[in-house]
Amino acid sequence: MTRLLLDISMSLDGFVAGPRPTLEDPLGEGGERLHEWVVKLAAWRERHGLDGGETGPVADLVAESVRRTGAVIMGRRMFSGGEGPWEDDPNADGWWGDDPPFGVPVFVLTHHARETVHKQGGTSFTFVTDGIDSALEQARAAADGRDVAIGGGASVAQQYLAAGLVDDIQIHVAPVLLGAGTRLFAEFHADSVSLELVETLGSEDATHLTYRVAR
Amino acid sequence: MTRLLLDISMSLDGFVAGPRPTLEDPLGEGGERLHEWVVKLAAWRERHGLDGGETGPVADLVAESVRRTGAVIMGRRMFSGGEGPWEDDPNADGWWGDDPPFGVPVFVLTHHARETVHKQGGTSFTFVTDGIDSALEQARAAADGRDVAIGGGASVAQQYLAAGLVDDIQIHVAPVLLGAGTRLFAEFHADSVSLELVETLGSEDATHLTYRVAR
Repeated sequence: MTRLLLDISMSLDGFVAGPRPTLEDPLGEGGERLHEWVVKLAAWRERHGLDGGETGPVADLVAESVRRTGAVIMGRRMFSGGEGPWEDDPNADGWWGDDPPFGVPVFVLTHHARETVHKQGGTSFTFVTDGIDSALEQARAAADGRDVAIGGGASVAQQYLAAGLVDDIQIHVAPVLLGAGTRLFAEFHADSVSLELVETLGSEDATHLTYRVAR
Repeated sequence: MTRLLLDISMSLDGFVAGPRPTLEDPLGEGGERLHEWVVKLAAWRERHGLDGGETGPVADLVAESVRRTGAVIMGRRMFSGGEGPWEDDPNADGWWGDDPPFGVPVFVLTHHARETVHKQGGTSFTFVTDGIDSALEQARAAADGRDVAIGGGASVAQQYLAAGLVDDIQIHVAPVLLGAGTRLFAEFHADSVSLELVETLGSEDATHLTYRVAR
């Protein structure tokens, strides 16, 4: 059964992006620090056409995430480059370049219908205008037995969490307090949600928490 | 040098108490689940006059926290029993009973001056009306070379964090999403704060993160 995975980096105070994002700095002030742990990894560098990098248990965790992911769902803002005034430009071609680091079909939740874009390396961007259930259904079909990953941003993650559709949560907690920005978890009015803590992996650069959502 | 330690349990979505606290349930709805990991421990049970309980690395971590703590600072609400309409009753004698589980001097930040209360087992409650710096100074003196721990609640922790006075942060992340309640970290307007991740300890019940605040 294809599972839905939320895999995202977060500050200790719960932000996935810092305040005041710009087109040049779509992660907001301090937001890049959330991802310092991953850009050091050989697995990440290889996917971005770079040599070298770290190997070890954290690299293995990321490699396993990549291996199991057959399709990705992301929000419009994540496609076009973080939050900001450009995010509603229906003609924006994203900020992922010709060879995006996904290598699988990506489904972009948007209000603007457009044709699927095929990039190099197996990445395609399909634009879904009829909601999160439809995006998940299409992503599951495209994943071909592998899992579906939520690529962000926070609002997409929150919608899938609120709908009770997320099966697994992998959070990379960066050792930083951003103080402001975009929170991963919205407040919700419901009984608390139980998680099973499946794995904890610590390094100097981040703590990697893997949970299964208890039903 | 006496260090200031913030040691607190938090949900994965950043809450230290659930919504709608009452006098009977001062941790709010779901809030008790944040502390399930600790009440299982032999070290906790012993301090509360109970037998049995778990030993091991997590118990050792808590024992080390207890050993290094020579004084505690807490907020008025933490003294009188969580948040709620009773919290401003200047005559409330707290909810900690005759033999509170601290065993060291406790300094309660409040607007209501009153005499120091001495309890059994080495716990005393001193009421500080002239602010966080004064409370810290008094606690440092009382700690007699050991460290000072912030016992909560969130607003006290936030005040010390904002003032740049916290040296060490130990957060116990419970595998639960509360959805609402009292957040540990307030939004603040400052450059991001760097933390050094000193130790990560995982169990089924919680993830224990120890940070040093980088200066």
